[in-house]
Amino acid sequence: MHTVFAGRTRQMGVNAIREILKVVSQPGMVSLAGGIPAPQSFPLTIVRQLTDSVLTKYGAAALQYDATEGFGPLRQALADHLAMQGIQASASHILITSGSQGALDALGLVLISKGDGVAVEAPTYVGALQAFRPYEPRWVCVPTDDQGLIPEALEDLLRRQPIQFLYLVPTFQNPTGRTILEHRRRAIAHLIQKYDVLLVEDDPYSALRYDGESVPSIKSMAPEHVIYVGTLSKVFAPGLRIGYCVAPKPIQDWLVVAKQGIDLHTSTFNQAMAAEYISGGHMADHLPRILSLYRPRRDAMLDALARYMPAECGWSKPEGGMFIWLRGRMGTDMEEIYCRAVKRKVAFVPGKFFFAQPGHGLETMRLNFTMADEEHLTMAVRTLAEVLYADGSQIEEELTMRVNARECDYQSIRNSIT
Amino acid sequence: MHTVFAGRTRQMGVNAIREILKVVSQPGMVSLAGGIPAPQSFPLTIVRQLTDSVLTKYGAAALQYDATEGFGPLRQALADHLAMQGIQASASHILITSGSQGALDALGLVLISKGDGVAVEAPTYVGALQAFRPYEPRWVCVPTDDQGLIPEALEDLLRRQPIQFLYLVPTFQNPTGRTILEHRRRAIAHLIQKYDVLLVEDDPYSALRYDGESVPSIKSMAPEHVIYVGTLSKVFAPGLRIGYCVAPKPIQDWLVVAKQGIDLHTSTFNQAMAAEYISGGHMADHLPRILSLYRPRRDAMLDALARYMPAECGWSKPEGGMFIWLRGRMGTDMEEIYCRAVKRKVAFVPGKFFFAQPGHGLETMRLNFTMADEEHLTMAVRTLAEVLYADGSQIEEELTMRVNARECDYQSIRNSIT
Repeated sequence: MHTVFAGRTRQMGVNAIREILKVVSQPGMVSLAGGIPAPQSFPLTIVRQLTDSVLTKYGAAALQYDATEGFGPLRQALADHLAMQGIQASASHILITSGSQGALDALGLVLISKGDGVAVEAPTYVGALQAFRPYEPRWVCVPTDDQGLIPEALEDLLRRQPIQFLYLVPTFQNPTGRTILEHRRRAIAHLIQKYDVLLVEDDPYSALRYDGESVPSIKSMAPEHVIYVGTLSKVFAPGLRIGYCVAPKPIQDWLVVAKQGIDLHTSTFNQAMAAEYISGGHMADHLPRILSLYRPRRDAMLDALARYMPAECGWSKPEGGMFIWLRGRMGTDMEEIYCRAVKRKVAFVPGKFFFAQPGHGLETMRLNFTMADEEHLTMAVRTLAEVLYADGSQIEEELTMRVNARECDYQSIRNSIT
Repeated sequence: MHTVFAGRTRQMGVNAIREILKVVSQPGMVSLAGGIPAPQSFPLTIVRQLTDSVLTKYGAAALQYDATEGFGPLRQALADHLAMQGIQASASHILITSGSQGALDALGLVLISKGDGVAVEAPTYVGALQAFRPYEPRWVCVPTDDQGLIPEALEDLLRRQPIQFLYLVPTFQNPTGRTILEHRRRAIAHLIQKYDVLLVEDDPYSALRYDGESVPSIKSMAPEHVIYVGTLSKVFAPGLRIGYCVAPKPIQDWLVVAKQGIDLHTSTFNQAMAAEYISGGHMADHLPRILSLYRPRRDAMLDALARYMPAECGWSKPEGGMFIWLRGRMGTDMEEIYCRAVKRKVAFVPGKFFFAQPGHGLETMRLNFTMADEEHLTMAVRTLAEVLYADGSQIEEELTMRVNARECDYQSIRNSIT
């Protein structure tokens, strides 16, 4: 059969991470690869109650077609929730989407013409690249440092060239785990207003804070210039596919029109469950349990990195989220390391997949700490250190000197999974 | 705030039907407007069992991220179901989408470049126009008659100009209720193979057959040239947003890539419920109940049309589905009629909204018979006849002569709702 695809289809690429995740399902694999919540974090018992109360409260309406904008009670619950985060939005300003991916896709559809400049951090969230790419943007990469995007570099860029919008994950960024601090956020809020540029502020992780003080959203600083994108995937359940966005009115109106064509509306039943989860106080009750599951995992990974990784490696020390970013010796090819690590049953994501432009970040990797428990994380980091810096015995020897009494535990774990 | 939208955004239009549906929610309105299943058709008790069995059987996996392609057990259940309809597809050939709208949008994204010819029936399903429009196709309308698309007209068109694909709803079409009969389907299957053209066969209604013999799908006649699109919205629950498509392999592969960017995947929980609904035999048990709900409604509407509408009107007599198509006297403006009917608490959709090209179908309307019960349908059709052909007493008189003994019932119903 003769098939001619659309011009834009050439621009699309398979999401390498989702390909990697297929490897992860191999038996015995310890995955530091996914951006996936631990199954133990899901409120299974609450979900059972919620399905029941939704069917009792809404009956057939929970199974019926609903407004494209979203299910009324969920929009109201989110408006109340956002107000507590300093984001003033009435229910009518909130658009429910099919995961935050649904918001990013609709934004790409509505905002990006072929060749439009879209500014992103380097590295950035690969799902955003994939959502925007079919609409054929021109990527403009904004330099970052250990505190995330550098405001001076952003101004330099905005002065030189027009961009359609800037995309940021300011809190516990995927992939680096970095958070842009308040003074930089204020500088960014000032710049987007000064240059009259839109910011897409993607905020999936800010609720997952294990220590430190929360930082206000950029949306709260420049509401008319920010499209705020949120999700319940990290604080409820990703399999329900509930995201949302709060955009300035004219953009919101077009997003609704776009969503009519994309998927008509997001699952009524799942939206009703999400509404009950938030407004019934279940989210507030359950979130601390998620945090106490992930906090020790993050600590275990940071401890293991400090213990096993040679000093020439650098990594982020995030106060929340799901990821740590590791930078190896210059010249290291982390894709090659990935292939060797997988043979030893440890998976991660090579950092290069998070850069819009090819050839960047070859020496970096993203490490997830939410899926494995503390002992497996410790073991996996040690294995990575061995793969990274061993071509055999002399590094093994160096590591042996540095490991402590937990070694025995580690050996038994390794035996149990390989 | 200065906002520049993408070029394609100009092409999008608000779905007039969804705007009309807002009117429908006014108290006392009898709606012949929606394309919406009756709430009484939903298997509420079964859904309660299914939520329970899904959480017991799959646990956390039902709430977790899942493959873009779809939830394994649902793909298998659909493969088995399609085999019984004469469509041979393994589970791996089936892509689960967020409603059939999700399949249409992904097809638009993957297949349509600006200016590409997309051939549609005139009239056609407005949701398809809305899904494809952002990708800026050039609409090519294929003439139809009372048996749907005319194969000779299609060949004439294919000989003259290249098209990217043809979009059809061959069974109980939305909006006309028409079904393309088998000999025409065979001619269409032959033509798409002869001219090596793709057909998108959208089939939401074929399970809703109230009488007559089922007609094989065009997919079963030309599998390598047809993308078959289905949905569970009419036989399970639209609020769960479960659709699917079966496409030739290279298209399927690109649809998966596109869907990664659009919404990552469709709700795992809802897919798991759908899998249990089909493979547990619930769909086979429940479908007859849906048919016995709708069959008398269709009959009541056809009876009322025959009784009240002047002979100069013509309408379709569908063996299934949800719609009847009515054509009034040439020169009638059904949008004006709509405004007058709504004042008398009866809503429908003016037919012009189903035509890709403006100015067509002004004298037509789409009548839905699934949402109201038999008595309200009868009353609403009579009201429409009055609005259509009355500027007062003389038509009222004509109608009075034609109505029969049920008139008393009708009066009491009218009193009860106005």
